[in-house]
Amino acid sequence: MNVTIDFGGTNIKIGLVQEGAVLAKTSIPANSGDGMLARLPEAERAVRGLLAGAGADLGQCEGVGLSLPGIVDTGRKTLVSIKGKYTDAIGYDYAGWAKAAFGLPLAVENDARAALLGEVAYGAARGERDAVLVIFGTGIGTAAMMEGRVVRGKHDQAGILGGHLTTDVYGVRCACGNPGCLEAQASHWSIPQRAAKLPGFAASALARENGWGYEAIVKAALEGDRFANRLLDDLIVHWRAGIVNLIHAYDPEVVILSGGLMKSADVLLPRLTERLEASAWLSWGAPRFVVAQDPETSALLGMSYLVSRQLAGADAERNRSPEKA
Amino acid sequence: MNVTIDFGGTNIKIGLVQEGAVLAKTSIPANSGDGMLARLPEAERAVRGLLAGAGADLGQCEGVGLSLPGIVDTGRKTLVSIKGKYTDAIGYDYAGWAKAAFGLPLAVENDARAALLGEVAYGAARGERDAVLVIFGTGIGTAAMMEGRVVRGKHDQAGILGGHLTTDVYGVRCACGNPGCLEAQASHWSIPQRAAKLPGFAASALARENGWGYEAIVKAALEGDRFANRLLDDLIVHWRAGIVNLIHAYDPEVVILSGGLMKSADVLLPRLTERLEASAWLSWGAPRFVVAQDPETSALLGMSYLVSRQLAGADAERNRSPEKA
Repeated sequence: MNVTIDFGGTNIKIGLVQEGAVLAKTSIPANSGDGMLARLPEAERAVRGLLAGAGADLGQCEGVGLSLPGIVDTGRKTLVSIKGKYTDAIGYDYAGWAKAAFGLPLAVENDARAALLGEVAYGAARGERDAVLVIFGTGIGTAAMMEGRVVRGKHDQAGILGGHLTTDVYGVRCACGNPGCLEAQASHWSIPQRAAKLPGFAASALARENGWGYEAIVKAALEGDRFANRLLDDLIVHWRAGIVNLIHAYDPEVVILSGGLMKSADVLLPRLTERLEASAWLSWGAPRFVVAQDPETSALLGMSYLVSRQLAGADAERNRSPEKA
Repeated sequence: MNVTIDFGGTNIKIGLVQEGAVLAKTSIPANSGDGMLARLPEAERAVRGLLAGAGADLGQCEGVGLSLPGIVDTGRKTLVSIKGKYTDAIGYDYAGWAKAAFGLPLAVENDARAALLGEVAYGAARGERDAVLVIFGTGIGTAAMMEGRVVRGKHDQAGILGGHLTTDVYGVRCACGNPGCLEAQASHWSIPQRAAKLPGFAASALARENGWGYEAIVKAALEGDRFANRLLDDLIVHWRAGIVNLIHAYDPEVVILSGGLMKSADVLLPRLTERLEASAWLSWGAPRFVVAQDPETSALLGMSYLVSRQLAGADAERNRSPEKA
């Protein structure tokens, strides 16, 4: 059994996981305005509460798996770069914290990579070796696996910056500094800012909502709101381009879609995948599209997988890859 | 010694290569309008001519290395997809041709991957394990190496489609079908088409040239042509975005720039790399930029490297990569 923690921007999800099964889980508010480190004591209490509720104790746990937003150094087990919130956690000794709080070894990973591992090991893309994942959340997180190996790159940056590939170079400059990132045009945090400047916004039902996002756009569009329909058309252009960018970059057999946007998968999936072979360079066919099996727990499952493999002295998702001659 | 052939869109370069040294080379026109297969007999004669001139014979050669534009199946040793010219070569039995023509085994690879291997094995990025290469030629070709392995992906598509990552989703649709690819906005073949529709073109010196491209734009801009300066500003925005896309996708330590555009490297390199850390997400520093050591021969060197490694039964650039725990 592993203790798993997924530190999101809005909620911190915590679970006890054994072999791909979430035995117990809970969620606490992230209160991200206070930083990340201030939340660690409550996360620790929540873990102890889960264990007590399950009639278990730390002696039955192998390790702690922690997924974090931003760029994570998996070797030094710390956060190395994040934009906006949680900058207090950069360089923090998470392994020391896990040792002190639980007496357990720790694995850390970027949250999108953790979700990808969870979906490939136990979820909607089980057994796949070439996959990309896109989480349409507050931002747009991505991860990639190629030929059975999680894509990490020299500085742990590769695969996870798919939300920071450009879709419109003359669009909004992103928090990362790059002009026109997908995330700066078409994510939960950026859409309302950008939409408010577009013609016709004031007449839209969206202008009368507070804190609206993906669901409100789809709902208003389905109800015939003209602005919402134009906005949704524009967003689909960007989301499709972002997905094609990932297909062109990493050559996957399966594209896993996750995050809050997928609550509207029935409406959006046909539009995101329509005539894909005609609008991407595909020499072999087209990738299969799947929605994440459980967006709430895939990062927890993935972190449990990573912890067990690290403790077994193997990085299994790499070792599964035979070296091609 | 290896026979190496780089099948470009304008010229076919042919060389005899030994251990990173080009012993002899020549070039014949591609006449791409006639297809690729029609040129193979002349390529064969050119190889025999080179050998005769060097006082050598096929008995001294280990194998043939052939680089091709488009998507290449390195296992089946054929071209699987190409846009525009050379579609006659899709599925062709190049190994059979090399056996019949020279009695030698063959290795094939995409031309940008071959150039990357040449530059990493013997050129401007010698010894690097994390690199991307961009060839600004007729189109925009790219290749990537991560942690010592050439990026190929499940269907041999990964790494080579960097020219087909989007820079302007509302820009020109590419020959590959994707809206707004870098190549469709800012490559040798696409710039004149796009420029002719921009305001002010008719007053530019460029409007009075035939078959103008990268060099003419830079020259006109330096001479104060207002349209050429605006066009160059726009192109640099796209080229920078394309390079940042590759950095975000593959996390390199070095960016190798090649192709005809680099004849103006003294003017362009400072603008392409200016304040890069502020306009890309870089957690560790910034990649080094180098210009290819010899754009004319890097694919030949890379193919010779690949042939020798294949014959040695190893895929050396992969085996150089220790598996990280």
